[in-house]
Amino acid sequence: MTIEFWYLIGAALVFWMQAGFAMVETGFTRAKNAGNIIMKNLMDFCIGTIVFSLLGYGLMMGEDVLFGLIGLPNMDLFTDFKEFIASPSDGGFTGASTFVFNLVFCATTATIVSGAMAERTKFSAYCIYSAVISLLVYPVEAHWIWGGGWLAGLGFHDYAGSTAIHMVGGIAALIGAVYLGPRIGKYVTDRNGKVTKINAIPGHSIPLGALGVFILWLGWYGFNGAAATTVSELSSIFLTTTIAPSVATVATMIFTWIRNGKPDVSMCLNASLAGLVGVTAGCDAYDAVGAAVVGLVSGILVVIVVEGLDLKLHIDDPVGAVGVHMANGIWGTVAVGLLANPNAPAALDGLFYTGRFRQTGIQLLGFVSVAVYAAAAMVLFFWLIQKTHGLRVTPEEELKGLDSTEHGLPSAYADFAPSVEKYADFGPVDNIVAVTGTTPAAEAIPVKKVPSFEAGTPKFTKVEIIFKEEKLYVLKEAMSQIGITGMTVSHVMGYGQQKGKPEYYRGVAVETNLLPKVQVDIVVSKVPVRDVIETAKKVLYTGHIGDGKIFVYDVENVVKVRTGEEGYDALQDVE
Amino acid sequence: MTIEFWYLIGAALVFWMQAGFAMVETGFTRAKNAGNIIMKNLMDFCIGTIVFSLLGYGLMMGEDVLFGLIGLPNMDLFTDFKEFIASPSDGGFTGASTFVFNLVFCATTATIVSGAMAERTKFSAYCIYSAVISLLVYPVEAHWIWGGGWLAGLGFHDYAGSTAIHMVGGIAALIGAVYLGPRIGKYVTDRNGKVTKINAIPGHSIPLGALGVFILWLGWYGFNGAAATTVSELSSIFLTTTIAPSVATVATMIFTWIRNGKPDVSMCLNASLAGLVGVTAGCDAYDAVGAAVVGLVSGILVVIVVEGLDLKLHIDDPVGAVGVHMANGIWGTVAVGLLANPNAPAALDGLFYTGRFRQTGIQLLGFVSVAVYAAAAMVLFFWLIQKTHGLRVTPEEELKGLDSTEHGLPSAYADFAPSVEKYADFGPVDNIVAVTGTTPAAEAIPVKKVPSFEAGTPKFTKVEIIFKEEKLYVLKEAMSQIGITGMTVSHVMGYGQQKGKPEYYRGVAVETNLLPKVQVDIVVSKVPVRDVIETAKKVLYTGHIGDGKIFVYDVENVVKVRTGEEGYDALQDVE
Amino acid sequence: MTIEFWYLIGAALVFWMQAGFAMVETGFTRAKNAGNIIMKNLMDFCIGTIVFSLLGYGLMMGEDVLFGLIGLPNMDLFTDFKEFIASPSDGGFTGASTFVFNLVFCATTATIVSGAMAERTKFSAYCIYSAVISLLVYPVEAHWIWGGGWLAGLGFHDYAGSTAIHMVGGIAALIGAVYLGPRIGKYVTDRNGKVTKINAIPGHSIPLGALGVFILWLGWYGFNGAAATTVSELSSIFLTTTIAPSVATVATMIFTWIRNGKPDVSMCLNASLAGLVGVTAGCDAYDAVGAAVVGLVSGILVVIVVEGLDLKLHIDDPVGAVGVHMANGIWGTVAVGLLANPNAPAALDGLFYTGRFRQTGIQLLGFVSVAVYAAAAMVLFFWLIQKTHGLRVTPEEELKGLDSTEHGLPSAYADFAPSVEKYADFGPVDNIVAVTGTTPAAEAIPVKKVPSFEAGTPKFTKVEIIFKEEKLYVLKEAMSQIGITGMTVSHVMGYGQQKGKPEYYRGVAVETNLLPKVQVDIVVSKVPVRDVIETAKKVLYTGHIGDGKIFVYDVENVVKVRTGEEGYDALQDVE
Repeated sequence: MTIEFWYLIGAALVFWMQAGFAMVETGFTRAKNAGNIIMKNLMDFCIGTIVFSLLGYGLMMGEDVLFGLIGLPNMDLFTDFKEFIASPSDGGFTGASTFVFNLVFCATTATIVSGAMAERTKFSAYCIYSAVISLLVYPVEAHWIWGGGWLAGLGFHDYAGSTAIHMVGGIAALIGAVYLGPRIGKYVTDRNGKVTKINAIPGHSIPLGALGVFILWLGWYGFNGAAATTVSELSSIFLTTTIAPSVATVATMIFTWIRNGKPDVSMCLNASLAGLVGVTAGCDAYDAVGAAVVGLVSGILVVIVVEGLDLKLHIDDPVGAVGVHMANGIWGTVAVGLLANPNAPAALDGLFYTGRFRQTGIQLLGFVSVAVYAAAAMVLFFWLIQKTHGLRVTPEEELKGLDSTEHGLPSAYADFAPSVEKYADFGPVDNIVAVTGTTPAAEAIPVKKVPSFEAGTPKFTKVEIIFKEEKLYVLKEAMSQIGITGMTVSHVMGYGQQKGKPEYYRGVAVETNLLPKVQVDIVVSKVPVRDVIETAKKVLYTGHIGDGKIFVYDVENVVKVRTGEEGYDALQDVE
Repeated sequence: MTIEFWYLIGAALVFWMQAGFAMVETGFTRAKNAGNIIMKNLMDFCIGTIVFSLLGYGLMMGEDVLFGLIGLPNMDLFTDFKEFIASPSDGGFTGASTFVFNLVFCATTATIVSGAMAERTKFSAYCIYSAVISLLVYPVEAHWIWGGGWLAGLGFHDYAGSTAIHMVGGIAALIGAVYLGPRIGKYVTDRNGKVTKINAIPGHSIPLGALGVFILWLGWYGFNGAAATTVSELSSIFLTTTIAPSVATVATMIFTWIRNGKPDVSMCLNASLAGLVGVTAGCDAYDAVGAAVVGLVSGILVVIVVEGLDLKLHIDDPVGAVGVHMANGIWGTVAVGLLANPNAPAALDGLFYTGRFRQTGIQLLGFVSVAVYAAAAMVLFFWLIQKTHGLRVTPEEELKGLDSTEHGLPSAYADFAPSVEKYADFGPVDNIVAVTGTTPAAEAIPVKKVPSFEAGTPKFTKVEIIFKEEKLYVLKEAMSQIGITGMTVSHVMGYGQQKGKPEYYRGVAVETNLLPKVQVDIVVSKVPVRDVIETAKKVLYTGHIGDGKIFVYDVENVVKVRTGEEGYDALQDVE
Repeated sequence: MTIEFWYLIGAALVFWMQAGFAMVETGFTRAKNAGNIIMKNLMDFCIGTIVFSLLGYGLMMGEDVLFGLIGLPNMDLFTDFKEFIASPSDGGFTGASTFVFNLVFCATTATIVSGAMAERTKFSAYCIYSAVISLLVYPVEAHWIWGGGWLAGLGFHDYAGSTAIHMVGGIAALIGAVYLGPRIGKYVTDRNGKVTKINAIPGHSIPLGALGVFILWLGWYGFNGAAATTVSELSSIFLTTTIAPSVATVATMIFTWIRNGKPDVSMCLNASLAGLVGVTAGCDAYDAVGAAVVGLVSGILVVIVVEGLDLKLHIDDPVGAVGVHMANGIWGTVAVGLLANPNAPAALDGLFYTGRFRQTGIQLLGFVSVAVYAAAAMVLFFWLIQKTHGLRVTPEEELKGLDSTEHGLPSAYADFAPSVEKYADFGPVDNIVAVTGTTPAAEAIPVKKVPSFEAGTPKFTKVEIIFKEEKLYVLKEAMSQIGITGMTVSHVMGYGQQKGKPEYYRGVAVETNLLPKVQVDIVVSKVPVRDVIETAKKVLYTGHIGDGKIFVYDVENVVKVRTGEEGYDALQDVE
């Protein structure tokens, strides 16, 4: 049994990371897009396999033809299979093993991006992006680093791909996220476009996300270790690949605990990945202390970048791909120069161990060159896709969810009642009522305008409003502005004339005549019923079927449990 | 470290496929049966291990005693353990390795069936089936192919089991699904039994199903590769096992996109498996092009078979097991004859490469022989089980869900509110109202019959109906027929006299006095309240406790947001 | 390729068991604590890595310094990395491999405990516990057994850790669960503290739990097999590691089927793990029959211990960790003495095969010694943690859920409507109404007290109560006591003055002004409205904002579907 068996087992573990990315990205985004994000993850592997076979592999591993910049594609895979599976490649492994190994790495690069572009990218545009990165972008820079190209010649050390895979994937993720803009509801802006409020849009399944992280961590033993050919190399890689993410996770736990008062679960899950990305370039070059330092920095760095991107730059990266892969891909590449221990298997001269700067310089040159190339390529390709095809779904599609609009899947979780969608508002909400022209709250409040109060027997009325969920946020704000201090919200299904278009699930038409709606119950006495109705009408009106209905009921009495107040007083929440 | 270590690692990966099947089948069926389908998947491995140890392994791998038809069971496993774990089997591996390897393959065959028979098979009947297939059915045909039997002697090539495992499992799945009949609500029939409508019953967790597919794909590198003993063989298998499912998935994406207008998520997930099944028989016999062609056909084939079975034949296979395993098991077997490249490790003469038909002929003979045997055996055994024990749960159990009725598990997802069950109707619904004898809609409509309209102050009334979920579908249809154009549906819990039987979760009695109900609110003015009440009574009546209650409320006003209409007009939806 | 590659692959499989524990514990507990339990599982690996590196590894594997009781820590990992990764340890593997291997086993011990202490342990306290067990407790007893300590010298056989890992983890779990006490609502007690009722608190995702079991089973092939160096040893281990859990699972299925009338899903999942724990100590020492007997006993034992702990001792172990790991860890250790076959690779003299008691005696001595040490250490450490830091969250935190209170995560499943919390009551509920002083039901019932009845036109009134979910249980009981026989319960969101504290999700403040509430609708005629209101007020009052509101509506008519009764009669449920 030759070492090549381990090489292939390692490749299988790297394939397994596709499942990890799919689960992380699904768990950290919303349920209404779960089928779509899975489809994207599945497709970047499948499309990637096809295009990498046809051309990408040749560009990466073919004979160098242009000063270390590009390989010469050949058709050996298709024309001379016997030779391909028998004769050793440059790495000493057979052509088929080398192909499979490089394919799964290429697919990892592609899949990083889907998370940052989640919940708003057209599926067709994503397929195009996915083909382009695996066909043209990744193969070229991977040729520089691993295919005998110019960076390999200089001694650039990126053992398992902090630069080649993660930084490049992270850069593409960042550029994609910027091109797309944020998800609707993520940033609330005023009329001048200034962000006045940032909403958290929590992922819909932390357990699935966590499972994805564990899958990725397991896969990383293959990712970092597959190319190892000696025991001291592999055991050392397992050691560093365990220590770095552990330290990173603990660092993030402590850091978020101190900063936000509580240890943040999803950020710690990101931190494990950050530590893994960080240690990737030098997993064979660090000792235990070096790996721990790499992890420590990764754990802090991922929090700062994820939060900075969101809170300062207002770039919406739903799963933290930029913080995990780009930032730590860069850090991991530079760290080799700083922290490589000459006694580790790679035997490199780290600055902190030897005082020699040479390796650090090469590392800096390497990541900058690759970053410039990757950024330029992705800016160009995303621009082309946007111009010729469009990158983003319509606001209606985004609000409804990509599962139903892009795939005809009414829900990825057909048997569970969804919770009420919270953040699906449109644009500025700072003064809805003024904009919509309803009776201003100030005018509506005076008691004397409501005759029944004077007679001593105030009337209580329940206004029941049934409407589309995406309007909840603005309705809530508007009601608040006319003096409503309490309401009950529930999720209902509306059956009526508003039919959806027929969708197909596995070829069978799916009936969609039960549509998700929100019911808001407001009981009023002081605030005039007419104000509530008019405010609701203004806020909910779009002119399309399904705008909603309002029902008005008499209420006999109201009791507030805490104070024991009844009737009129029970409705006046002043605390 | 000998090659046998890889053989065992591969066996562990095949065991891992059990998790994949469990997740796929759970995700693609309904939440109310999730515990049951998991239990079936767990049990076919555990029961299979016992019966395969006792007898199946001997029938399969024992010395041939009947012209290549059957092996002679022996008790070496139990009587001479030292010899068993030390001495090599025919394959050159030790007896214990060979046993574990063959056991996990046998269990794969058994587990394919549970998906097609999901959501309506008695658990006890499934246990019997599971014992039978692992004890008697699989071992015999596997002896023919892999145990030194007659097909092995002829040169039949089924490297990892397109025929031996997948086709046989798929045939058992098809026969089981036909014996059982469709799930309640899947096909709506008229009085003559003609299908007038086909309902999609979406799976309850696409992410779990997708995870299952990724698990299976990873496991398949072991499934196809475990028996490889040279690097060129294994690397070539990894290559074909990657290309075929990738091409299949892309083919299905494009095919469903063109046919249904949108790329279908769950069908693409099926397609990955279809490509894997297709490439299994000849994973060592194809080159890259051959693998791609196998995948291309698999991707189209799975869609056609899954949809044809459902739309044309009205056979209800909830997870697509017949399309994935049977259809592609056959295709994969035949494809070896057509597409084997003599330069691939298996060195077979494929028709398209050499013009020689011999291998194709053997492949045809092989799959037909095994299919006839498997079909005959399964028809017999399912018939016996049905006659002596019963195969299907009662309609009441099916509607309530197998988790609670078969396992005393009130819900596999105790903390989530279920969505409203949509398709749990009984029999024909084409003219409910006529059948039930309610005031026909035509009579009820005339305005003059409702005095309050003339007085200019029409009365609005809310009818609130609370009842068992499985009646929603018929109630909706019936209300539609008497002129109701809008209603609000919500999921509630009913607390009352209707107690469930005590169930035991981990030995502790589970209280079930909060029972899931549906609440439908209908506000009427033109349609007489009495008509709504009588229609509801007729439709909901079964005579059992829990049939439901109806409450009637006065409504003061109604507003339609889109048109601004109020009162009577707001209720007349005519668009 | 040396055997050390398999050793490391095996270690990666043991790492993978962390994912299995995380999924099992998450699935078998409630959704409101899902993020917390994942965080604990992630952290015990990460914290464990750090403390085991710093000191634990030295205590376990360092040169023996005290009559086989303890190893001498050294800093080789940090000071002489070249030597560490190159030179063989006592086991013949390099230092780095040996370190990683022992680390993942240590982390397994730590993670067992989180399940038994789930849903009520302070996160900070858990971190301290986790550091202590990996730093001090595990390394010492593991030194005895595997580090050249006194038990190793005696011939104590615990191949993969039934005692060293599972029993020790299980003992810590038991002591932790006892220190903590049961979850609120698990046991209902009367005024004297006597348990009058035991509630099942079902896990929130059986599919995730099942996935965890499959993950663990796969990982166990590495757990039991990683240290094997010959084919006959490894193949024999794969055989026993397959047979024992299979038999255990079938045994539990039959046992629960007979006892409770139905085969219990979650208990069968526990049984697979029980069989795996049972076979661990002697996985290299049994033949097939021995493995089956071990599994048979494990399957019965786990049910008896899990149920006995709950039903008899009232110790609340949410996931069954004590039954699985402690009970079967002990059984597995003793079983080696009884069932070891001299012909198996370990070549031990089992009592039943050879009639020699010696091995059994050593096994008994071994597990008792380790149990005494582990119990003493854990009693001490948990006592110290409790005294100095506190072990349990407050009742308010526990009821609200640890995700939001410990981690600022409003929900691990943001997009799903939660079901109504059933068991969040406080203390005794046997006579709520008497305690709270409401009009006794007996007085309230007489018809003559309700004037409208005499007039022949009884008034019907709907009382709608909106309140915090944790009060549902007591409200239901109290209403039942005043004669209410039916109510409708639904889950709503309350928007109002009651703001939650700002929480941070990934650094972004999460709005929490939509708070989960329960709405109960009660329609009464005979029972006075005032009684319903007063009872609700008494039961719901806490004096804090958010106690709830009560609305009263007129009802025009009531119809009971089953009987056709209308009006007053329709409300009198007497069956």
